[in-house]
Amino acid sequence: MAQFPVLVEVTLRPGIADPQGATIERALPALGFDGVDGVRVGKAIRFTVEAPDVETARSRVDDLCQRFLTNPVIEAADITIEGGAT
Amino acid sequence: MAQFPVLVEVTLRPGIADPQGATIERALPALGFDGVDGVRVGKAIRFTVEAPDVETARSRVDDLCQRFLTNPVIEAADITIEGGAT
Repeated sequence: MAQFPVLVEVTLRPGIADPQGATIERALPALGFDGVDGVRVGKAIRFTVEAPDVETARSRVDDLCQRFLTNPVIEAADITIEGGAT
Repeated sequence: MAQFPVLVEVTLRPGIADPQGATIERALPALGFDGVDGVRVGKAIRFTVEAPDVETARSRVDDLCQRFLTNPVIEAADITIEGGAT
């Protein structure tokens, strides 16, 4: 079994309100940062998963995201499995 | 002035306790997911920044991360400026 490093980026689906992002965007001009637009705040979850090959690793992480790491009604997950085995 | 799409991944520095990650890791075996290790939860912040070129965009985002988006004592920021101008 190999260890695969994984990055899951969890983002709010388009159209879902993002109060944290809106607050950052509203605060920036007062702090001297102009020209920053469309701020959206999500989660970046990193871990390693043990699997015999990269396809199995991906299907396990897909399942994990659907069932546990995201709320699929309002969130989407973008999965990156880095490199080969380590 | 061009618009550059930016992704900032904010992670806790190594050695800084991550209770959210630890909780996920501890819960997974009970939910049927074994072999998941080293869970770390960070933030993924996406936005667009207006700048004359990519170097200026990067230096503005660096500054923004240092001063506003992260706590540099406990957090590190990994900045990705995507593609060229749009």
